[in-house]
Amino acid sequence: MNDRELGCAGGQFMDRGRMNQNGVVQPLLTDLYQITMAYAYWKSDKTDDTAVFDLFFRNNPFHGEFTIFAGLEECLKFLDSFHYSQSDIEYLKQTLPEGIEHEFFEYLGNLTARDVTLYAIDEGTVAFPRVPIIKIEGPLIIVQLLETTLLTLVNYASLMATNAARYRMVAGKHVKLLEFGLRRAQGPDGGLSASKYSYTGGFDGTSNVLAGKLFNIPVKGTHAHAYITSFSSIGELKTRLIKHKQTGILEDLLEHAVRHRALLSHLLDVSTEESSEGELAAMVSYAIAFPDGFMALVDTYDVKRSGLLNFSAVALALNDLGYHALGIRIDSGDLAYLSCLARETFEKVAERFKVPWFNKLTIVASNDINEDTILSLNEQGHKIDCFGIGTHLVTCQRQPALGCVYKLVEINGQPRIKLSQDVEKVTMPGNKNAYRLYSADGHALIDLLQKVSEPPPAVGQKVLCRHPFQESKRAYVIPSHVESLYKVYWKSGKICQQLPTLEQVREKVQISLKTLRNDHKRTLNPTPYKVAVSDNLYNFIHDLWLQNAPIGELS
Amino acid sequence: MNDRELGCAGGQFMDRGRMNQNGVVQPLLTDLYQITMAYAYWKSDKTDDTAVFDLFFRNNPFHGEFTIFAGLEECLKFLDSFHYSQSDIEYLKQTLPEGIEHEFFEYLGNLTARDVTLYAIDEGTVAFPRVPIIKIEGPLIIVQLLETTLLTLVNYASLMATNAARYRMVAGKHVKLLEFGLRRAQGPDGGLSASKYSYTGGFDGTSNVLAGKLFNIPVKGTHAHAYITSFSSIGELKTRLIKHKQTGILEDLLEHAVRHRALLSHLLDVSTEESSEGELAAMVSYAIAFPDGFMALVDTYDVKRSGLLNFSAVALALNDLGYHALGIRIDSGDLAYLSCLARETFEKVAERFKVPWFNKLTIVASNDINEDTILSLNEQGHKIDCFGIGTHLVTCQRQPALGCVYKLVEINGQPRIKLSQDVEKVTMPGNKNAYRLYSADGHALIDLLQKVSEPPPAVGQKVLCRHPFQESKRAYVIPSHVESLYKVYWKSGKICQQLPTLEQVREKVQISLKTLRNDHKRTLNPTPYKVAVSDNLYNFIHDLWLQNAPIGELS
Repeated sequence: MNDRELGCAGGQFMDRGRMNQNGVVQPLLTDLYQITMAYAYWKSDKTDDTAVFDLFFRNNPFHGEFTIFAGLEECLKFLDSFHYSQSDIEYLKQTLPEGIEHEFFEYLGNLTARDVTLYAIDEGTVAFPRVPIIKIEGPLIIVQLLETTLLTLVNYASLMATNAARYRMVAGKHVKLLEFGLRRAQGPDGGLSASKYSYTGGFDGTSNVLAGKLFNIPVKGTHAHAYITSFSSIGELKTRLIKHKQTGILEDLLEHAVRHRALLSHLLDVSTEESSEGELAAMVSYAIAFPDGFMALVDTYDVKRSGLLNFSAVALALNDLGYHALGIRIDSGDLAYLSCLARETFEKVAERFKVPWFNKLTIVASNDINEDTILSLNEQGHKIDCFGIGTHLVTCQRQPALGCVYKLVEINGQPRIKLSQDVEKVTMPGNKNAYRLYSADGHALIDLLQKVSEPPPAVGQKVLCRHPFQESKRAYVIPSHVESLYKVYWKSGKICQQLPTLEQVREKVQISLKTLRNDHKRTLNPTPYKVAVSDNLYNFIHDLWLQNAPIGELS
Repeated sequence: MNDRELGCAGGQFMDRGRMNQNGVVQPLLTDLYQITMAYAYWKSDKTDDTAVFDLFFRNNPFHGEFTIFAGLEECLKFLDSFHYSQSDIEYLKQTLPEGIEHEFFEYLGNLTARDVTLYAIDEGTVAFPRVPIIKIEGPLIIVQLLETTLLTLVNYASLMATNAARYRMVAGKHVKLLEFGLRRAQGPDGGLSASKYSYTGGFDGTSNVLAGKLFNIPVKGTHAHAYITSFSSIGELKTRLIKHKQTGILEDLLEHAVRHRALLSHLLDVSTEESSEGELAAMVSYAIAFPDGFMALVDTYDVKRSGLLNFSAVALALNDLGYHALGIRIDSGDLAYLSCLARETFEKVAERFKVPWFNKLTIVASNDINEDTILSLNEQGHKIDCFGIGTHLVTCQRQPALGCVYKLVEINGQPRIKLSQDVEKVTMPGNKNAYRLYSADGHALIDLLQKVSEPPPAVGQKVLCRHPFQESKRAYVIPSHVESLYKVYWKSGKICQQLPTLEQVREKVQISLKTLRNDHKRTLNPTPYKVAVSDNLYNFIHDLWLQNAPIGELS
């Protein structure tokens, strides 16, 4: 392993010998106030205080009613490697205000996440507002110091996985989805995170080669318009020969293509003179390079009058020599119309030239696709087999941040509540457990938060579920199945669960989404999924709220 | 330097001994199709072909009429280190379709950017749609291989710098702007890029400590609500003593604060019983840790009825002991009203307690700020000295991607044009130079593209500037100053310019913005800045267009 590879490995290797973490994920990847707070805590003799923090979000993104939790593995790797280097300490000495006691830097230099316990929902699970997806217990100072980095690792990962899962839902199971967003992402690592978590959310691959290498994700791609425009005539073709797949005899691919092109010109009612000769040359050369993987961009000049004719000619030429082309990509224009036109063309060619596999050629579309475009294409009817999606996917244009927060809920066994003028922003105090209650048909009914001291809800037994803030909203639920949502993922300096592979997390997403009723998942006006608190927790919250809220005085 | 630091250094050191590059910036950080195209070019014997590509954007972001170009230094570092490692080659062998000739991998293994020449506008300059910000010449295969990575490095950097520059414009020169967005960025490196380029665009600092360390940007921060809520009574204060700054005698800070609080309670008409004792304790402890840097969050319970009272009490207590507090942060509520209330409170305290510096306490605001919020606060009137801005800044919510493209414009000396149904998407063919023409008062009048063979426009001489696509839009311009926009930044394997420091680029942004007339910069309906082509280039483009566009046939 050379230096450059260490560049994206960070010199940290998990025992499991799995993926490495980006080297920038380190304790200084945080907000300065975490460190100034750490000093103030330390100075106030709070090194032995223990705290519980909840990491949660308040609203589902994209006007939806669910979120996919992702980023957990990165959080665990971060805990595993948490340590301030000597150079970090030197930097902090220069950066923090003067007068910081020297012993504090020694204290920092010895800090690790060993005494922290992290509970989490499984990565890839659907999650809902206000139900903590991660709960962290441990020494106040260290759990406070983890805040920003954990938020950074969870926020975008979950947003991206959720976005990808939504694209998957609207595209349906049988359409392939590829992530093409590297060039429009928030810099190099934004692009890598996008590739990884769109795969988690249900995409089939990415164009990002480094993501393929680092995360073992399928990578896909053919050529750009520049390839086509780099040829302007068949005279520029320096190589025209290709070996017949079966006989091994060298043949002139261009000659075959030109012959088929003339025949196709009649069949498709397109003049060969109108179509681009440069495009033909480019496609021939590309087919010679990838005879078994010929996939061509057909919209450089004109899909109907040039691209489909040239592609079909080259694909038939390849067929003469024992190869099957893969298909086309359309990157502009009316995708519904053009994809239908392309399919119709392929069907004509299949029939006329007796090449039935032509019916099954793949049609990829890739121009500025978003969730709404796919819905609209579905309505219009289209023949697209695969979408390549970039900008809208990776920037999460409809809502570019998830807004996870990290709130103190208990300190030294005492609950803490953060009040706000805005009821939605009031935190749920205390150390809590979370359960998901299921109906007999396997659907998730409600998520229930309880105090850790309460016994878990039991199958077949009636449990009173209350809206956390609206007194009159209550329901009795008799669960057919109860899932305890938290597992201990990190304790005593060790990862405590066998972590799933990326593939397994990806499967988990689909399995978890299946437990949700369709009305929670639909695009337009989905039904909110219920999140409730136990009666006991309800009373606890509201007593504490009244104790802490000052009584106003109007005069 | 330990392994982890290599993690964000990438093992590449510039001769200049300056900042290192994120290790994920490497040749595989690209779309797969660049590599499949490279193989097809290689297989077509196009290794000696030379090409010119333009990197440009088509629209300014954020409904504005200018863009700040950023990311150039990263592009140059990428060129400098461009090399496929053995492990990259191994990965590609597994990933590309079977049948790729072995010699191609040898060819790839020996590729460098030595034969590439890169021209660019200076980093930090204002740039406009269609005027290439980077122009690259060199062997077709290698310049094609650079596409995605260069786009990734320029797109978000420029978007972010532009966004930051816009915030700076609306906030005015005298208000401090801090970037607080790490937790909402596209993962760890998205956060680092946001910090770096918001500083470039005119921000004063960041909360991101690692960005501070890597880029030498000022880092700022105090504490979070969690710090305040971690104390619930003054009984929890284990340390109350602090040395008098001048005498060195230990005194009880809490005692001083409690005494002042009683007096302030009358002055401010707020009952001490209503205000939070936990907040007082937290502030006292924080002041003991940072007596010379006391900046407190005042909205945890209630700004008016608790936060300002407690802050003023602790600040006066510090004053007794020879220290000056810095100010407050408000993170919720009506920022216009609360900042005015805070300033009024400070003025009252300054007068009553004879502490004139209280008038100048800093008021920081940080709740969900965006460009419109600042404009609206300006209209309402506010007393905020500093904004901390996170989500909207780093996600560029109003337009999360810039949309730079990279287009082939010439190959082996022959121009190439990419046609499109959409006139705006037609590329400007050929190898071009770009000039900025200035008026006598120093304002930029117009950007002019010419063929490289044309002599540059001359000061005092009339030049015909034409709209690239609208025949009748023409103007004669007599420039008082002509700036040639491109410099050779990379040639023969070397960086050819003394690269500016981040500070210098930051200054450049403000200098360059000053050359723009205000009507181009205003927020509402700004005037578009003109981008023109020479008469010669106009004719060249349109001749080529007609040659390449097929004549349709309607029947």
